[in-house]
Amino acid sequence: MQRTVFFISDSTGITAETIGNSILAQFEGLSFDKHRLPFIDDAHKAEAAALRIKTHYAKSGERPIVVNTMADRALCEIVAASGALMLDVFAPFIGPLETELGAKRSGAVNRSHGLVDFDKYEARINATNYALSHDDGIDVDYAQADLILVGVSRSGKTPTCLYMALHYGVSAANYPLTDEDLEKLELPARLRPYRDRLFGLTIEPERLAQIREQRRAGSRYATLKQCRWELEQADRLMRQSGIPFLNTTHVSIEEIASKIFASFGIERTMF
Amino acid sequence: MQRTVFFISDSTGITAETIGNSILAQFEGLSFDKHRLPFIDDAHKAEAAALRIKTHYAKSGERPIVVNTMADRALCEIVAASGALMLDVFAPFIGPLETELGAKRSGAVNRSHGLVDFDKYEARINATNYALSHDDGIDVDYAQADLILVGVSRSGKTPTCLYMALHYGVSAANYPLTDEDLEKLELPARLRPYRDRLFGLTIEPERLAQIREQRRAGSRYATLKQCRWELEQADRLMRQSGIPFLNTTHVSIEEIASKIFASFGIERTMF
Repeated sequence: MQRTVFFISDSTGITAETIGNSILAQFEGLSFDKHRLPFIDDAHKAEAAALRIKTHYAKSGERPIVVNTMADRALCEIVAASGALMLDVFAPFIGPLETELGAKRSGAVNRSHGLVDFDKYEARINATNYALSHDDGIDVDYAQADLILVGVSRSGKTPTCLYMALHYGVSAANYPLTDEDLEKLELPARLRPYRDRLFGLTIEPERLAQIREQRRAGSRYATLKQCRWELEQADRLMRQSGIPFLNTTHVSIEEIASKIFASFGIERTMF
Repeated sequence: MQRTVFFISDSTGITAETIGNSILAQFEGLSFDKHRLPFIDDAHKAEAAALRIKTHYAKSGERPIVVNTMADRALCEIVAASGALMLDVFAPFIGPLETELGAKRSGAVNRSHGLVDFDKYEARINATNYALSHDDGIDVDYAQADLILVGVSRSGKTPTCLYMALHYGVSAANYPLTDEDLEKLELPARLRPYRDRLFGLTIEPERLAQIREQRRAGSRYATLKQCRWELEQADRLMRQSGIPFLNTTHVSIEEIASKIFASFGIERTMF
């Protein structure tokens, strides 16, 4: 039977969910039924949450697990009265940090995903607009790009660019290798001035064919033969041009982005 | 003087950074110099990280803070030898969870942002493609939309749609209210069948004018007068059509998304 987990927060719940998922992932082979309860910021909402958890407990007979980032102790106690196992994300770290910093926690609602810094917002939005307008080689002005992703169609360039823009404000352009590029085995002229900003994405041919089949069922574009040819040529082109590249088949968007940043020595932190 | 913080991980570092930022944000008024050290997964890399932290300590005279999600105890000890304050993100929760679940932590590298589940990947990518092709009212087939964001140009619809798609696999379309819609004070006919999936974004006129000025400096589009008129009309239209809406001026993309989900009762958890 799946154990039920509630991510509870006085704000978005993103921190509770992120750390909760990481902790639960360490218990391999177990699966969990996960629920997010965000914006629990007064006693009334905390009581409703506690009732829901308690009801769940009574029905299933299994003790629910609560991953909690609410700052207010009184609210935590209301939820704890449900009988769930309470994992308080911040509690273990506040004491050591207060000692180290010689400062008291402000005790306010967690605003790490709520506060808006206009400069940072602008950096996110500008980078996102950049990614949108430099997607699929449509716009050719690469001068402002922090980096340019290169690869065959459907190798994962667009979502990776958008993720890097939204979360790190990195202006990432994207260039899909055309059949012509792949036949010539030459970097297109307009990419050559930016060779040190290029990064390649590759993927296993079977997976690529599967993805393309979803997009254009029965097309030549989606055949394993075509995918294999494109990927082999792309591989050759990237090797001979000295472009670092990554096989994305078993890698999440987050990990692709982190590895690209590591490759370029970009240590930018998240928004 | 800014205290230096290192986010250390054997994987992407996203969990370390997320919880680290949340904890640090609770010490209002203090600012931190943050560095991410991802993929520290062997003794050699851990020693290089420790050396870097130790050097920093010696130079600044201030004890660095390490927010750590490495699972391997031996690697943690190598880094701890730098003398930094070690905040181990997982340690406090593993014991209680092992007891509760009657299972041992597998001890492997944290894969929560690395593992790829093809179904989930597809959901993210399909939703992202949906958001891209249903942006700015270009494509009018709203039948598949989980929700449709409505608002004047530059009110934050596009990044919000992309964020919801990338992280929650929610297919969010976006409809920019035109001058014609705003003059008529009528919902466009093609939105009417989907009234229960509409959500409005609004923004303060001063902020909108500032954003538009960056895009089209000196244009009528960017004048405070035009922004004010559009926003007043949009406000009227949303109220009379019974569309829930949110002022995004001081709200992060993450919080906008969480509030929209809460409004629709969407409890979907993150990818």
